[in-house]
Amino acid sequence: LEHPGLDKAAGEEFLREALQILLDEAVRKGTDVTEKVCEWKEPEELRELLDLELPSRGERPERLLERCRVVIQYSVRTGHPRFFNQLFSGLDHHALVGRLITEALNTSQYTYEIAPVFVLMEEVVLAKLRELVGWSSGDGIFSPGGSISNMYAMNVARFHRFPESRRKGNWALPRLALFASRESHYSIQKGAAFLGIGTDNVHLVGTDERGKMVPEELEKEIQRAKAEGAKPFFVCATCGTTVLGAFDPLSGIADVCQRHGLWFHVDAAWGGSALLSGKHRHLLAGIEADSVAWNPHKMLAVGLQCSAFLLRDTSGLLQRCHGASATYLFQPDKFYDVSYDTGDKTPQCGRRVDCLKLWLLWKAIGTEGLACRVERAFAFTRYLAEEVKRRDGFQLVLEVQLVASGGLCVCVFPP
Amino acid sequence: LEHPGLDKAAGEEFLREALQILLDEAVRKGTDVTEKVCEWKEPEELRELLDLELPSRGERPERLLERCRVVIQYSVRTGHPRFFNQLFSGLDHHALVGRLITEALNTSQYTYEIAPVFVLMEEVVLAKLRELVGWSSGDGIFSPGGSISNMYAMNVARFHRFPESRRKGNWALPRLALFASRESHYSIQKGAAFLGIGTDNVHLVGTDERGKMVPEELEKEIQRAKAEGAKPFFVCATCGTTVLGAFDPLSGIADVCQRHGLWFHVDAAWGGSALLSGKHRHLLAGIEADSVAWNPHKMLAVGLQCSAFLLRDTSGLLQRCHGASATYLFQPDKFYDVSYDTGDKTPQCGRRVDCLKLWLLWKAIGTEGLACRVERAFAFTRYLAEEVKRRDGFQLVLEVQLVASGGLCVCVFPP
Repeated sequence: LEHPGLDKAAGEEFLREALQILLDEAVRKGTDVTEKVCEWKEPEELRELLDLELPSRGERPERLLERCRVVIQYSVRTGHPRFFNQLFSGLDHHALVGRLITEALNTSQYTYEIAPVFVLMEEVVLAKLRELVGWSSGDGIFSPGGSISNMYAMNVARFHRFPESRRKGNWALPRLALFASRESHYSIQKGAAFLGIGTDNVHLVGTDERGKMVPEELEKEIQRAKAEGAKPFFVCATCGTTVLGAFDPLSGIADVCQRHGLWFHVDAAWGGSALLSGKHRHLLAGIEADSVAWNPHKMLAVGLQCSAFLLRDTSGLLQRCHGASATYLFQPDKFYDVSYDTGDKTPQCGRRVDCLKLWLLWKAIGTEGLACRVERAFAFTRYLAEEVKRRDGFQLVLEVQLVASGGLCVCVFPP
Repeated sequence: LEHPGLDKAAGEEFLREALQILLDEAVRKGTDVTEKVCEWKEPEELRELLDLELPSRGERPERLLERCRVVIQYSVRTGHPRFFNQLFSGLDHHALVGRLITEALNTSQYTYEIAPVFVLMEEVVLAKLRELVGWSSGDGIFSPGGSISNMYAMNVARFHRFPESRRKGNWALPRLALFASRESHYSIQKGAAFLGIGTDNVHLVGTDERGKMVPEELEKEIQRAKAEGAKPFFVCATCGTTVLGAFDPLSGIADVCQRHGLWFHVDAAWGGSALLSGKHRHLLAGIEADSVAWNPHKMLAVGLQCSAFLLRDTSGLLQRCHGASATYLFQPDKFYDVSYDTGDKTPQCGRRVDCLKLWLLWKAIGTEGLACRVERAFAFTRYLAEEVKRRDGFQLVLEVQLVASGGLCVCVFPP
């Protein structure tokens, strides 16, 4: 039998040359302000340029290296200083090194046996994020994104209130109701549909003129849901709404949750990183909720994906809710302390390593450097707002909100 | 404001040096049979060696490079020829290049605007995988793993049969029942719990002595579920069960599904790659089901994660089931054909690029090379089985199954 692609020396030579292209084209040019952010092509033309067809026989290394160049050339430079699409711009060289090592090691993070370094590292990184939230203990896991973290929160909350849901499904439960603001992320509705709760049972709570949830409206929605015969169980507050960058008033919402005995989740996927800044963390005052979703891959430029799902619980709720104790993977009789086999806490089986890039970045620039990064994002937004105000043809939609977010809402009037 | 970690020249120099370490330590030594697979340390000792604490101030580049070396040193070499833990061993240099470029580009695959190359590439790769399944058209998406692909299948099946589930949740539905063999992956149970269906409503169907589902037993379980007042809607067959590597008899199961009008899903996360081999694809005869989960990151050594969820449907079911049409991301009035904005087909929002590594590998070694790789896995298993039979103190548990899987069941009797 042949060894397709297994010639080590040739493979390493190819890798070495490809890394040079990666350095020159994706990293250096990709972050160079004098280069284009994107070389736009319509689908038909791009399809031809890429020659995507998957062949029967392999190609020569030179041809493959040329393909790497072309892929980079027509991709959007998300690390470019002028990339302003969505919420994950920027390229950090240290985080990138963490990501490249992660790929080379190709580890699945389920057990200590297979991921000793990363099991310990994830524990430390999650503990640090929890500490910033305000918890000296708790639980958590990295998930494949903020949307999925929000689903974890709903599922854990459902299980906490109704443990029978796991075995019997929603049929054993009263009709549930959950609450998030009108400006909340669409993943709340996607999650409710996915978890068998249904989008009709998501109550969208009214917001003020800045896009913040109004606690009195939450109270009213809870009463309305109860009157309709549903059982409220979960409230999601948002720190950094997608469009307006609003931060919900957490303390007021916490009071309502406490009064009604509801699980209090904070979707801080975007805004969570403000916790690092002494100047801006007041925006998240009251975040010591039941659970928090926080994506360092957004404001901290750690790279996709790095999504922490954090829990206040110390009773093993996450494991009881998601665990299946598959005996071929999570044997209780291994030769080491199996409490380190944390992979069963997620609905995933194989799971990527998402902690190394954040850990290495943190070692490189420290908590102070991260704080600085967050404060730059806020400062740039303020600067842009001032510039907008000085220009004809532009109108600032929401002035006050600016200070409270890394985003900006502007109306442009074409001449 | 300072620029933490944003000194381009220093960052690039750090990256260059780290890449050298990556090449030497993770790639060359990581695949060298004369090196150890793992330098085992107990948690306490390893914690000390790693010095994981996250500091207030950043560290010098030399210290960080040393940290990279240490992380690699104590990680398990999953690309080592003697790494036999779980199902994703091996390192392919071409796939690795695809993965490293993916990381450097840091693209979120939701719209054509932000991921033009990868939107087109994912389409071609998924079409090729579907073609191997036996479909000339259809739909699909890359997901964060086989467990989540299986959940997508359950959710799409539920929505297909009961579209009201999306809005009203399970309460509007009869109590559902789903079916998988006793040897099926634990993600079926995890998925049922997560989706609000409940593990009690997962009927585990009896298997034969080789671990294959018995269609007659499936028929009986369906009758039993009906008698208990539940509504069968979904059957999962497994191609490559986790422990025994068994392939369920798909045609027999398909007949039962057709007779009862049930969604037929095939969990081919492990075994799907046998479709590439003319010699072994007969194991999956009848795989033209309603949906298929296939992880090229397993037998093809593409690297974690590369999980395809494939659908026969051509009516846009996946988009209708999962889509939320968030207006800030999936505007219908963009300047290009928005049918290329495929990210709304998943319950995720941001989504990693998982197609490039498989595409580049395919270009490098072709369908023939991939087939060869699969056949080597089967041949090695057969070879190992013969060796086991010749040795005292070993017993082959399942002889026949060997030919039908990449795995091996052996009993070892310590002297």
